[in-house]
Amino acid sequence: MPRYEILSEESMATLTLGWKRIVSEIGIEFMSPWAIDLLRENGQTVEGDNVKFDPEWILKQVAKAPSQFNLQARNPKNNVQIGGDSMVFGGVYGPPFVREGDVRRDATFKDYENFCKLAQSYDALDSVGGVVCEPNDLSLDSRHLDMAYAAATLTDKFFMGNVVTAQNAKDVIAMSEIIFGGRKSIENTPALISLINCNSPLRWDDRMLDSLREYVLAGQPVVVTPFLLMGAMSPVTIPATLAQQIAEALTGIALAQTLNPGCPIVFGSFLSNIDMQSGSPQFGTPESGIGLLCTGQIARSFNLPFRGGGGLNSSQTVDAQSAYQTMMTMMPTFLSGTNWVMHTAGWLEGGLVSCYEKFVVDIEILQSLMTEFTPLEFNVESLAFDAHVEVGHGGHFLGAAHTMERFRDCFYRPFLTNSDNYERWMRLGAKDTKARASEIYIKKLEEYVQPEIDPRMKQELDEFVAKRKSQLD
Amino acid sequence: MPRYEILSEESMATLTLGWKRIVSEIGIEFMSPWAIDLLRENGQTVEGDNVKFDPEWILKQVAKAPSQFNLQARNPKNNVQIGGDSMVFGGVYGPPFVREGDVRRDATFKDYENFCKLAQSYDALDSVGGVVCEPNDLSLDSRHLDMAYAAATLTDKFFMGNVVTAQNAKDVIAMSEIIFGGRKSIENTPALISLINCNSPLRWDDRMLDSLREYVLAGQPVVVTPFLLMGAMSPVTIPATLAQQIAEALTGIALAQTLNPGCPIVFGSFLSNIDMQSGSPQFGTPESGIGLLCTGQIARSFNLPFRGGGGLNSSQTVDAQSAYQTMMTMMPTFLSGTNWVMHTAGWLEGGLVSCYEKFVVDIEILQSLMTEFTPLEFNVESLAFDAHVEVGHGGHFLGAAHTMERFRDCFYRPFLTNSDNYERWMRLGAKDTKARASEIYIKKLEEYVQPEIDPRMKQELDEFVAKRKSQLD
Repeated sequence: MPRYEILSEESMATLTLGWKRIVSEIGIEFMSPWAIDLLRENGQTVEGDNVKFDPEWILKQVAKAPSQFNLQARNPKNNVQIGGDSMVFGGVYGPPFVREGDVRRDATFKDYENFCKLAQSYDALDSVGGVVCEPNDLSLDSRHLDMAYAAATLTDKFFMGNVVTAQNAKDVIAMSEIIFGGRKSIENTPALISLINCNSPLRWDDRMLDSLREYVLAGQPVVVTPFLLMGAMSPVTIPATLAQQIAEALTGIALAQTLNPGCPIVFGSFLSNIDMQSGSPQFGTPESGIGLLCTGQIARSFNLPFRGGGGLNSSQTVDAQSAYQTMMTMMPTFLSGTNWVMHTAGWLEGGLVSCYEKFVVDIEILQSLMTEFTPLEFNVESLAFDAHVEVGHGGHFLGAAHTMERFRDCFYRPFLTNSDNYERWMRLGAKDTKARASEIYIKKLEEYVQPEIDPRMKQELDEFVAKRKSQLD
Repeated sequence: MPRYEILSEESMATLTLGWKRIVSEIGIEFMSPWAIDLLRENGQTVEGDNVKFDPEWILKQVAKAPSQFNLQARNPKNNVQIGGDSMVFGGVYGPPFVREGDVRRDATFKDYENFCKLAQSYDALDSVGGVVCEPNDLSLDSRHLDMAYAAATLTDKFFMGNVVTAQNAKDVIAMSEIIFGGRKSIENTPALISLINCNSPLRWDDRMLDSLREYVLAGQPVVVTPFLLMGAMSPVTIPATLAQQIAEALTGIALAQTLNPGCPIVFGSFLSNIDMQSGSPQFGTPESGIGLLCTGQIARSFNLPFRGGGGLNSSQTVDAQSAYQTMMTMMPTFLSGTNWVMHTAGWLEGGLVSCYEKFVVDIEILQSLMTEFTPLEFNVESLAFDAHVEVGHGGHFLGAAHTMERFRDCFYRPFLTNSDNYERWMRLGAKDTKARASEIYIKKLEEYVQPEIDPRMKQELDEFVAKRKSQLD
């Protein structure tokens, strides 16, 4: 389907002016000494932690990045392409809490495993993502091992790298080497994609930079993502925020391309706004929708894969707001042809909560939009002239031959959406969407079948995790 | 904002083939003898009730219709333009039932009046529409008078004509003449827009045709609308349905242009699909979204104003489904640049229910999308370079001068959407969207102020309604 592009050439030229001025006149801070040294060695102007850039050098570095790349999954059927025309979807990332029904509580490793199982169970989702929820009942030092192990064994889809420390990154890379048959294999076709957030405005912090370095040197793509809540981390006007976003993303990408020229990389965007009265973050806003449409176009102008969007919302529960805000970002996610979509399923409460019922709602929304954004086939046969002849005037097409041939798959078949009439709906318990979603996820977990895994690979993973835990805990 | 157009030239050519074949080889039924006579006199081939058309004659007639026109409202500030770049929004149309909270019941005239008051209270809505709900407690013969009287006096926005009988149409036209100072005034600038549905497939029934004639001869625009639930009233493939839609709409429009050449008219679309397992209608489906995007493009290709979309959904209650399905049609409604949007607010349960809470949700969605689809201003000032200089690295923009100047209106300010943190939300009663919407509409009705009305005009309307009621009841 065509992309919906809303920026004129003049607007793009204005943005170019904007980001070039930011990187060259204000500069960007890098809190890791190795990054400062590397940028100085490459001719950029260093003042303490701050680096003032030559915009043309940035563009030269950025041009080294591939416009698309593949990611391998444990099951090759689940390999994906990031970039170009493809869209790839992962679960929510980062919430410390979980909601099921009306209970909100600390997330546990059991929840983490459950979300892995759900992600495995829905074909529409390409990955559980990374930190689908924080397993708060596990040791802080070693939970990255448990999470990677769960994602690697409960799903056979690709998963994300951990970015809490450089050592965590090394551990997860080592686990990928076990899964994919050694360093060479993941250097040839990367297996981990990792989220590197900017400490916006205009600062890359050391933890993020150090994790970035580990992944980039191992040839694993990172998603270089300015973290922009307009009004707090960026100005309240969208053009100013977009200019800042380009400045932050491109400097991170230029650094990565200097570390490892040609390494796969993604132009990331996490752009919403705060409520100017309360100061609290808002998601699924019209402004975030506009930002998303613009950013897709901007990333393409640099020939880079693009990450953004997802099912973002500020709602506390799986109600109407959670759904209309999710659509307010998911629809532009599709319209802007987003290549890597984090937070596709499960996001609630501004990203503080992974919600089981929301996960199910989001899968329904995702599948519906996949249908909506599939190009139609137009030809003389699809006109079904014979059906019109058969049915004639004032009749109905229910029993027409054309209908009979196609009724099974002519329309998207929802699994959550209900179109029962009122009497039937009442008779079946008057269940709203949240109640139905609850039944669905419980059943889905009961029916879950663990994907096969090579026993030797599993043993190696077990041993690696046990060894590292004994060193860490 | 640009339109999102998804049909290629080849697809459009295929559709042209399709509708031309339907009108010329199968023909369209017209159940009013006057229509048959008129079409025969104008050279079309009549066989009983069926008319086989020369497609070129249809195109010649259709070309007489204006591409846009104005509608006058009782308060000139509420006048609107239908067509071109403008989008005009009206409330739900037709439901026999009402839902408030968890109660679903027969709609009454009190409800009708309440929805008029709500429509008047929200600036985003241009009109209450027409039958915002059926006042089942009023006499069937004369309720059109009560509805038009309520819409004309409780709001000062334009409203829709009644189409149940030709006599009803005459009555509402007569009331408009009172309001706008005579026949000449409404002939110069129309005041009523009316919904004429096709009895799809391929049949125009007599009641609809007779109402169409009244309005068209009075120079009042009608919305010529094929009523298409794919699988029942049209084939299960979208191209076939689109070809049928064009055939039905254009034949109705050609008839109107033959009755009164140059009269204002709208290419209408009501296109969704049934659930192929239960046979029940579904709304807010991906297929209806695609249909909407295509139809906007098709209507523009004939240089006609376009009606479609709205907040359609199949949900029984104001839950997540009601919202994601509404967005699944409202977003394409904007993307296709729909000129006249019926069913914008209040629609629930496949159009069987006018819901107070849904009305409020829909206004929030409408206002959000209006913000999202407002073109951005891009210039050097909007880049806010000084704000970046002021805040620098790692700071925040909350207190920046640029923020202070703009914080009141830099972002859309929601009135229903909640972004409180969890603790505050719990403290305030853990209200979901439905509960909050309920409080809002009750308060809105309490605060309602009836718009001023010229006492002489009101007296004339009173007398007219009383006289007609004494004749009818």
